[in-house]
Order: sequence, then structure tokens, then C-alpha cells
Amino acid sequence: MFVVMVVGAGEAEILGVKGQILAEGLTPFEHAGSERTVIAVVGEIGARKPVLIDRLSALPGVESVTPISRPFKLTSREFHPEDTVIRVLDAVIGDGSLTMMAGPCSVESRDQLFETADAVAAAGATVLRGGAFKPRTSPYAFQGLGVQGLRFLAEARDRTGLPVITEVMEPNQVDIVAEYADILQIGTRNMQNYSLLRDVGRVARPVMLKRGYGATVEEWLMAAEYIVSSGNPNVILCERGIRTFETYTRNTLDLAAVPLVHHLTHLPVVVDPSHATGKRWLVKPLAIGGVAVGADGVMVEVHPRPDEALSDAEQQLDLDQFRELMAAIVPVHEHVRSLHGDPLVSGAALGIGGGGLAKH
Amino acid sequence: MFVVMVVGAGEAEILGVKGQILAEGLTPFEHAGSERTVIAVVGEIGARKPVLIDRLSALPGVESVTPISRPFKLTSREFHPEDTVIRVLDAVIGDGSLTMMAGPCSVESRDQLFETADAVAAAGATVLRGGAFKPRTSPYAFQGLGVQGLRFLAEARDRTGLPVITEVMEPNQVDIVAEYADILQIGTRNMQNYSLLRDVGRVARPVMLKRGYGATVEEWLMAAEYIVSSGNPNVILCERGIRTFETYTRNTLDLAAVPLVHHLTHLPVVVDPSHATGKRWLVKPLAIGGVAVGADGVMVEVHPRPDEALSDAEQQLDLDQFRELMAAIVPVHEHVRSLHGDPLVSGAALGIGGGGLAKH
Amino acid sequence: MFVVMVVGAGEAEILGVKGQILAEGLTPFEHAGSERTVIAVVGEIGARKPVLIDRLSALPGVESVTPISRPFKLTSREFHPEDTVIRVLDAVIGDGSLTMMAGPCSVESRDQLFETADAVAAAGATVLRGGAFKPRTSPYAFQGLGVQGLRFLAEARDRTGLPVITEVMEPNQVDIVAEYADILQIGTRNMQNYSLLRDVGRVARPVMLKRGYGATVEEWLMAAEYIVSSGNPNVILCERGIRTFETYTRNTLDLAAVPLVHHLTHLPVVVDPSHATGKRWLVKPLAIGGVAVGADGVMVEVHPRPDEALSDAEQQLDLDQFRELMAAIVPVHEHVRSLHGDPLVSGAALGIGGGGLAKH
Amino acid sequence: MFVVMVVGAGEAEILGVKGQILAEGLTPFEHAGSERTVIAVVGEIGARKPVLIDRLSALPGVESVTPISRPFKLTSREFHPEDTVIRVLDAVIGDGSLTMMAGPCSVESRDQLFETADAVAAAGATVLRGGAFKPRTSPYAFQGLGVQGLRFLAEARDRTGLPVITEVMEPNQVDIVAEYADILQIGTRNMQNYSLLRDVGRVARPVMLKRGYGATVEEWLMAAEYIVSSGNPNVILCERGIRTFETYTRNTLDLAAVPLVHHLTHLPVVVDPSHATGKRWLVKPLAIGGVAVGADGVMVEVHPRPDEALSDAEQQLDLDQFRELMAAIVPVHEHVRSLHGDPLVSGAALGIGGGGLAKH
Repeated sequence: MFVVMVVGAGEAEILGVKGQILAEGLTPFEHAGSERTVIAVVGEIGARKPVLIDRLSALPGVESVTPISRPFKLTSREFHPEDTVIRVLDAVIGDGSLTMMAGPCSVESRDQLFETADAVAAAGATVLRGGAFKPRTSPYAFQGLGVQGLRFLAEARDRTGLPVITEVMEPNQVDIVAEYADILQIGTRNMQNYSLLRDVGRVARPVMLKRGYGATVEEWLMAAEYIVSSGNPNVILCERGIRTFETYTRNTLDLAAVPLVHHLTHLPVVVDPSHATGKRWLVKPLAIGGVAVGADGVMVEVHPRPDEALSDAEQQLDLDQFRELMAAIVPVHEHVRSLHGDPLVSGAALGIGGGGLAKH
Repeated sequence: MFVVMVVGAGEAEILGVKGQILAEGLTPFEHAGSERTVIAVVGEIGARKPVLIDRLSALPGVESVTPISRPFKLTSREFHPEDTVIRVLDAVIGDGSLTMMAGPCSVESRDQLFETADAVAAAGATVLRGGAFKPRTSPYAFQGLGVQGLRFLAEARDRTGLPVITEVMEPNQVDIVAEYADILQIGTRNMQNYSLLRDVGRVARPVMLKRGYGATVEEWLMAAEYIVSSGNPNVILCERGIRTFETYTRNTLDLAAVPLVHHLTHLPVVVDPSHATGKRWLVKPLAIGGVAVGADGVMVEVHPRPDEALSDAEQQLDLDQFRELMAAIVPVHEHVRSLHGDPLVSGAALGIGGGGLAKH
Repeated sequence: MFVVMVVGAGEAEILGVKGQILAEGLTPFEHAGSERTVIAVVGEIGARKPVLIDRLSALPGVESVTPISRPFKLTSREFHPEDTVIRVLDAVIGDGSLTMMAGPCSVESRDQLFETADAVAAAGATVLRGGAFKPRTSPYAFQGLGVQGLRFLAEARDRTGLPVITEVMEPNQVDIVAEYADILQIGTRNMQNYSLLRDVGRVARPVMLKRGYGATVEEWLMAAEYIVSSGNPNVILCERGIRTFETYTRNTLDLAAVPLVHHLTHLPVVVDPSHATGKRWLVKPLAIGGVAVGADGVMVEVHPRPDEALSDAEQQLDLDQFRELMAAIVPVHEHVRSLHGDPLVSGAALGIGGGGLAKH
Repeated sequence: MFVVMVVGAGEAEILGVKGQILAEGLTPFEHAGSERTVIAVVGEIGARKPVLIDRLSALPGVESVTPISRPFKLTSREFHPEDTVIRVLDAVIGDGSLTMMAGPCSVESRDQLFETADAVAAAGATVLRGGAFKPRTSPYAFQGLGVQGLRFLAEARDRTGLPVITEVMEPNQVDIVAEYADILQIGTRNMQNYSLLRDVGRVARPVMLKRGYGATVEEWLMAAEYIVSSGNPNVILCERGIRTFETYTRNTLDLAAVPLVHHLTHLPVVVDPSHATGKRWLVKPLAIGGVAVGADGVMVEVHPRPDEALSDAEQQLDLDQFRELMAAIVPVHEHVRSLHGDPLVSGAALGIGGGGLAKH
């Protein structure tokens, strides 16, 4: 449930509410909005609900106490009406600017990475991607350079000034990846690896959470809830395609999910057309489509010589193609940017699934 | 297989090839391209293939004979490299302009239709939609006004000058629908109703073929092939969402299908975000997303008072929302229009599924 | 809604209720159960509901009037608690016996059909299948022998005594197919071809309705409702696999649908493992699995020389394989037959989707 | 690739081959079949393939060297034609006997577990299941008793003599779970948690690998390959339903996967109808269906008072229902057991996907 404080509630009143919540064996999460503070109550409430509402409502400075039926709480718009904006080095994600994450599928060598990093930075990328630990369907496929790859990524960040994002695959890697990388990525196969979600919820690095290829939007937001409720509010969502019966494309990019999660949650969302389609020549139109439906950014795979890539050769752009993509996408983003946030897109007054979002 | 004629081949030579094809018990389809003529050979070829290639190659004026492995032939880019452009009254579909099909889910009354038609025409719609015969999951639900609805549509066309599109559900309705409507729509449930496809293939009206909600892109193009091979080259494809496990939206709009079918076929394609999402507030961002990925147009449901609609109340825009959509989408279309047709989008030199399209 | 008559209600009372329903502009459907009669009220009731309930409740012989929230009515267990049993020639479907429908995908010649018919009849098949009008994804593929195929089927019935099932693809074929065949089949692509459903609802032949490969169980039952509400109560359901992301098999046979539809409806259900799997060697285990979950029968494709078949060569059993299947499946059916009908299977007291079935 | 040794090849010859493989920087896996020994070569072979085949073919005792195109190797029938049989305490899995895994979704208390364990053991269960670490979609839902739950499970094993299976969710839990449990379960969400797969590949306990709800059969076998190639040959597969568009059931149980994996691999496979359907009354028919298609066993959730369960209340059987299930399923298993293993089921001579399995 959410405790909504009166406008101008003081620190003592807020502390009083939080103290009461803790005394009930529950956990308070505070969001200081622009107008008023909201405190989410997290934990197993069960049958205590009416008593708890009465007790909390009676405390000084409390305007109202609202039970929430949605399963996601800290990630919901009700708790946190403003968009979450994430700052990492010079990059800002979620403020309406265009985030372009680009780089090779796998870090293969220092030279390959630097050549790519220099080119994408020059072309306007804002974040450098590159896989060091690679989740591969086959145990016999190239598994990435590991820690050596992380070191190259850190060097590339120092060269280019771009923050670096790379995947972390298991709890034991969290510390080392957090040491070298600026943003931690949770891959599609690990979206419901709850131990890993909790562990990245405890580090001081933003986390990009890819949607599971078999996961509903609700499950995806619940996975984000694991991270946020573990203490890390800086989560970026990434739509990368879901599994369907269609076989021409690797997966089906669910672009409706972009305005949907903007409606349901305050977290930024980017799209990954490379993994969704599995075909290089579909990356550009779908990247543009992603920003057109309101995505905060795009992640694409770029390789100096895609045909020689050790993984995902079919879907990586070459350097020229990335420059063409940048030239095309920046003005589209500028253009559609002003369109979003209006009532028809954010659906402020329109419910989902019959219920709707009661904004405080 | 395709018989490619030499540049400047004369009528006699073309007739000679067609005569030989007919003599083999097969059907020739001629496409006079800007540079050269291609003749598709349609029918059961089987084991005769090598003999047939030899015979046709030896005819005067033949440059080459190419066996085609794709199952769709007349709808393929190989046969017909230029985009198909469809003209109906003042509307032009497929020439790079923006086609906006708008109108109520069902024609409910003359007043409701005229109020909608006047408003969408004034706002810039180019085609008027409206259901007269309604395919309904339940036999007990409102089934449409039938022929009376067709008459209202024809009147609305006369008022507004907009060509009218409406669904035809069975072979016996084809003549009457073709009498009143300008474009015939085949609904998602009838995409593989082959008798109906053949029958609309024999009328002098463009046909809009919606993708079956459970159909692959290849099956969709094969359904178009039924229409084209029956004699009607004016087919518009319509992506309207496919069935997946996601439940927040009614279906999952497959926007990757838009550049994909532009690559595989010469037919125009529009997107229908109303049926795909089932939610009014998702229509605008996905309509914009559709034109951003290169769709030739958008079909949306519009009703003066959606809450009173007899069908699809949840997904119809009201008149103001349609005007807002037009204001937003036209400049986006203008903007992205110049981006498409370049190699990265059309993938001229890039194969699909390993094979690729050998352009003559 | 359903009007439940008192035990022993007389004809005059029943007529009184039906007359009142007709006077309201609605349609009555009577089911004379073993104990009492139930009359379903079909049509658009809308806001009249409370008034209507009052009026009907007040009539002589009425025990109760129950509003029904499920969308399918005449096909529901509430209306018709006993299993529907269908008799056609010597075959009985739905009475607990094992229905084995077997025969070639397509009727290719008199000899091919007779050779197959004689063999499957000798092996214990109870219904002969064979395609005369073939729905094919490609307009260029073999489309069946048409009326000639129907004639061969009728001859094969006369030879073997087995009733014949064959597909009808369009309204214009209904009469001719009904003239030659004993059971009409609606194929998976036509499950929502509503004109066709209505037309087969008006003939005096049982209809087998295949589930659409993209259709939910509810939509499938609604399609059956079209047939039954048009006047034909003899509908057999056929589960033949749905579309999923799995690619090893053609479709995914949804065997849970068998006990599910037995729970929701009174209609018999058979399974088609040939089309579901697309692989000959998976037919036998899944046929056995089908009867084990309670199916009333199985439909399998059988061809004397599958490798020479003009369609579905990969999935047809040869004659020996069909005999092996019969030898294996009959004792399994005998064995599991006694298991079904108990509370855990029929779930009499257990709801579905929170609602549950209120048995009268 | 596989190195097939001649019949009667001696230890020195086998060692020679393995030494050469190691010298190439690759890993040999030996399978001593009943007739001859096969050695799989695992690792990145790439362009060396022809040279390597020549070198290995020339070694003493080598009959042939076969390149393998399938991505799964150690789990394939080619490498290991005989069924894998797993023995744990008194239970034998994969030898044709019926494995019945039963117990509560979550261990909730010592009393609840013991009451269940005693009842399922008395009814004929062969393995006791119970969740101690619970993967939950929501971070706020009951997460299981953890190590305390493991202790109760170990006590229940001592009481009943049944081996205990329980889920391990993260690498750090592997040792403690292996200390208390007899079989380690990998849940559907962790099927591609590769670090976890590798870690359970290093312990001396059989592992049951549930299919990911969004995973293809091939990906599932590749996940098993991770475990086997890490050193643990004792893997049990568990089909538990995949995600589809159908909503009446939680997931769609893919029973075709059972004969399919029996064809492709030597590992035993069980089915889990509880999680697949999410409905108690569908568990019995689908459990029976599972053994009818050839599953080596069934896993079901059983709780003394399902309505009070802390998780999965809708799908757990009560103790009487489990006894009824046992009474029904045992004779069906006896009956169908003799049917499997014949050519039509195992498809020995019939290929899959065009390729087929060349048995040595």
C-alpha cells in the first residue's frame, strides 16, 4: 500500500510513518515527489490490511493510505509519477534525450573494440556496449573474453568518455563487472534469475533489464521490482522481442510494450532491434520505429567487419551502417519527442485492464 | 519460374512465350517493367522443369529463365521489382504518400456514419472505413447492418469524396459489396478462406488483405498470391497483430513485418493499431510507429462517441483524438518518408533466410 | 439465459414458455434432459434482463431462470448436462466407444482410395476420411479431385459400410458434399468462416469442427455455437494442434483441451495427431495419448504408399502402421475408458477461471 | 564429432584417442556402449575439422570418425544409444518403471511435509518433492523456508525412504542443497542460467532439468548438454508446459515433446501436469496422458489441504486425489509400457527435420 503525505509534510512526520511501518515488520520506501512524498509499504501484509490502513491513516501528516492491487509497486507510476532519469558519466537516460547504445556483440580483441568504440562515439553513440561474459545456447560456443574483456571495455570508456554497459550472468560476477562497467545488463535468459536480480539490486550501478523472450510485460516489471526493492532505483528496461510462431524474424519486437511500460511505470525503456530481428537490414527501420513509439533509446550491435564476428554475425551493423542509422534516427527522435507525454499517449485518464491508474 | 525477356523484346516475342506456356498447360502472367518484361509461369511444373527451361530459353526474345524457390511468385519482388501503386477515386496507395483509413468499426446508422465521415474527411483521412457485414466471435452479437450499411457507405462516399472500404465475409457477398464499396476488405479470420480469396480475385476492385492473427508472413503472402493469380493485382496488405502469450494487449503488432513484406513483395502495406492493441490510448503511438517503419498507411477505428459503440468500444478513437493523431502523424510521415528505399531498409543486397533475393 | 422447467412439466407449459420467448423477439432452444427440460433463450437481451427473468419466472411450470455469463450457451454443459451421442450409419460417436477415423489426406484415385478403405475397415476403423476439396496454402498446389473425389468416397462407403467424412470449404459446396458424405468437416483455416458455419448448421449431417490453429478453446466453442444455434446439434470437435514457437513439430497438440472441452461442453472431441505433429513416427504415441486423456476418438491419415502421396507425405501412416496403431490403441482405450467421468476428471464440483459451472 | 572404436578396442587404443584429442586442446567424453565405445570430441573445432578427422581416423582401434551436425552431442542418441538409467536410493528412473514424484509445492512446516510424505509414500510415490527455495514472480510473495525446509526434507526422506528432490535457484545454494537432497531440480525460469547449469554439472547428484516455458526442445537439450558436459551424466528432463496464446490453462503441456526427446536423446523424461495446467482437475487426465505417450514418470504437487497452501493452491491435489491418481495411472503405465520402444514410436529408421539419426 502507499501512504500519501500531505503537501508540506515535514521530516518528523515522514519519519513517524516510516517508524510505524518498520514496527509492523514491513519495509518503507520513500519517494519524495515534486509536490508531495509517498511512502510505499512493502512486505507480507495479508489480513492485517484494514487495521494497518487505520493505524497509518491516523498518523500526523498522512493525507491518505491507498491499497494497491497491482503486483508491482515501487516500479509503478502510482508510487512515482515522474519519469526516472538516470545519469551515468555524461549520459542521461530517460529525460527525453536519445540514448544510443552501440558496440559489438562480443568484445573479441582490444583492436576490434577500440575501432568500434571510436567510430560509434564519433557518430554520436551515448553508451558503449560489448559482451565480456556471453550467455550462449551451446556450451561449446565462444563464451566471451571474461575479465580481459571487462578491462578492454574500461579502457575504451577512458578513450571515448562513453559509459560502458556489459552483461553480468551470475551473482559471483556482480562485483567484478560493477568494478569495470558503468551499467550492468541482465540478459533475456536471466530475467527471472532472482538471486542475480537481488544482487544487482545492491550495487551502485544502473541496471538494464532485458525482457525475457517468453515473459509477459507484467513479469518483466515484477523482475524490475526485485531490483528496485533490493535498493537500486536505477533500472532501464529493454524490449528485445518475444517468441512467437513467426519464423522469418528471430523474435517479434513488441513495440506496443514501449508506450505500455511508459504508462505503467516510471522507468526508462530502450529497444534492441538487433536481437529482436536477427537480420541486419531490419535493424534500421525498427530502431526508428522504436523511437517513434516513444522509446528512450536504442541498443544496436555494431562490428567493424560483421562477417568475421565470433557471434551474431547476421545482425551486427558495420560502421557505415551505424553512421547511416544515426543520421536517420536523430531527426526522427527530435521530431516525435514533442508528441509524447500528451494524454492520448500516456493515457492518464484511461484505464488498463478495466482498472486504470488512480493518480494521486 | 520466371522468363526474363531481353530489353526491347517485341510483342510477337512476348506472345510466342505466352503461347508456349499455355501449350504446356500452364498459365503465363506478364509484368511489363520499366526496362524489361518478365513472364511468370504458374501451375504444376514438377519434373518437367529442366525440359521446360530448355524449351522456353530457346524462344526468340528470351534472355533467361529462372526457377524460383519461393512459394509466392506473382507477389514477389523478383517478378515485379517496382512498388505496386493503387489508385481508387482520388486516393493513391503505395506511392509514398500517407494513406489514412478511418471510420467506425460498424456502420450503426446514417447519422453516426455521416458524422464520422465528415469529421475524418475534414481531418485528412484518405479512405473511409466502416463495417456493414461484421464477423463476430459470438453468433448472438450485433452482426452489422448488412446491405443497408453498404448503402450508407456509398452515400458517405458521395458526400465526402473518400473511397470506401468495407469487409466482405463470404463469396455470395462479393458482388453486392463490390457494387457499393471501392475497396474490399478480407478480415483476419478469412485470410485462408480460399474460395473467398479467389472470388475477390475476379472483381475490379482493390482488395485489402488482413494478416491472419495466427498466420506467418509467408502464409499471408501466399493468400495474396491466391488473389493476384485469380486476376486481381491490386492487393493491399494489412498487418493487424498476431497472437502471442502477452495479455495486456489484444494482439502483438508485428511491426517488423512491414519492412519485411516491403522487401519480399511489391504490394503496399498498412498497419491497423486499433485491432492489434485493443486499447484506444495505444493507437496513436503505434500508428506513428507504423509509418516510422515504412508502412504506406494506417487504418484506425473512429467513432463520434466510442462509449456508445455497438462493437469495439474500447479501441475506437473519438473525433478529437483522430484529429490529434492526424496532426501528429503527418509530419512524422513526411519526415521518415525520405529515409526509406535506401539499401539498409530495402535490403537490396542483403538476403533473407540465407537465400536472398536475386534481382534481375 | 436458461429457463429450467419443473420435473414433470407438460407440453403446454413448455409451449407457453417458448411462446413468451418468441414474443420477446428472442429464440428458444429446448433440451429435454432425462429428468427435466431446459430452454435456452438466445438473442440480444441487453438491459431487458431483469424484466425478462421476472416474466419468465412467473410462467406456469417454470422452476427457475438462470442468467449465464459464459459466451457459449447451447454447447455448454449447463444447458445440456448429458454427453451428446452422434449416430451415423453404424458408427456411434461420443458414447464411450472408440471412434477411429482413417484414410488418405487426399483422394487421389479410385484405386488408392479403395485400397486404403478396405485396409482401414479391416483393421477396425469406424469412419473413412479422405479429402476431395483440399485447402492448400499455395494456389499452385494440388487442390483435390473435387466432385469426382466425392463420388469415389461414396463408392468406398458402399464397399466398406463405413460412414465417410470429408472437408467442405465454402458455402456453395455444402449441398454437394452433404449429398455424398456422411459427416462434413470444417478445416482449421475455416473455423471462423461464419457463413460456412451457418450453412453446415442447416444440413442434416453431423459436422466435425477442427480447432483453428490460432484459436483459443473459447473461440472454438463459439464457432460450434454458430453451428448448433443454426439448427444442427451434431457437432464433433477436433483438436489438431495450435501454433507455438516450437519448430520440431508442425504444431503443438494441446491435449489438455480434451478434458477441458469435456468439462465445458457436451460435444464429443477427437484428436488429430497427423496434422498436429507433421511426423509419421509421432502419430502413434500421440494417438494413444489422445485416448488416454479421454478423447472420443482419433483421426489419422493413412496412405498405401505415403512417399508417393500428393499431399502430406511426411505424416501419413502406411497400412501396416495403421494396423499396428489399432492393435496398440484399442486395449489402451478399453483400459482408460473406465477412468473417466469421475469427479477428478470431469471436475463437476470444481470451477474454471474462478466461476465454475453451476449444475442444475 | 564422434570417434567410433572398433568392437573389442582395448584400453590402450582408447587412451590413445583420448590423448590425441587432449593434445588438440579439445575434450574427450567416452561412452562405453554394450558393443563398442564411442568418444565424443567437444570444443571449438572450426576449420580444423578435415585435418582432425584424418588424424583421428588414422589412430589404432578407430573404426570411423563422424562429424555431427546437431548442436547437442553428449545428450544425443548417436553418442549414447541406450537409455540412461538413474538410480538414487531405491528409486530407478528411466528403466521402464513408473517414477512418481509427489509432494507439496512448498515445504511449509514439518507437520505439513510429514503428513504429505507419509501419505504419498504409502500410495506408491517413488520420489518426494518439496520446495525449500521458491522462485516467485513477486519479491513480496512467500519465498520458502530455505535451509530449514531442506532439513525437513532430509528428515522426511529418513522417515519414508523416498529420495528427495528440491529446487536449487543459484550457484551459491548448490552445495547446501546437494548436502540435503538426493535430486537437484532446475526450475523453468533457470533453464538457461548457465552458471547454475555448470555448477550442478559438478556435483554427484542427479539433476532434473525443467523445460523453460519459452524454450524450444533444442534449447532444452542444449541446456542439458551444459550439465552433462560439466561432468554430470545423470540428467532427468521434465516437460512442464510452454507459453502459448491459450488462457484457460496456465501453460500448454507439450506431450509431443516426450516421444520427441526419447528419439533425440537417451535421457529420461517426466511430465509435470500441475504447473502445466494450473488446475487441479486437469492433473489426473494429463498425468495419464503423459505416461501414455511414453514418459518415464510424472511429477505432481500434493498438499494435505490445498486451500490453505502458501503457494499454488489451485493446482495441488489433496491426499485422496493423489491416491486416486495412483490407482488409475499404475495400470495404464503397465499397459502402455509394452507398446513403446517399437519402431513407430522410437522412429529408429525415420529422420527428424530431414536429417535423421544415423545409429551406429
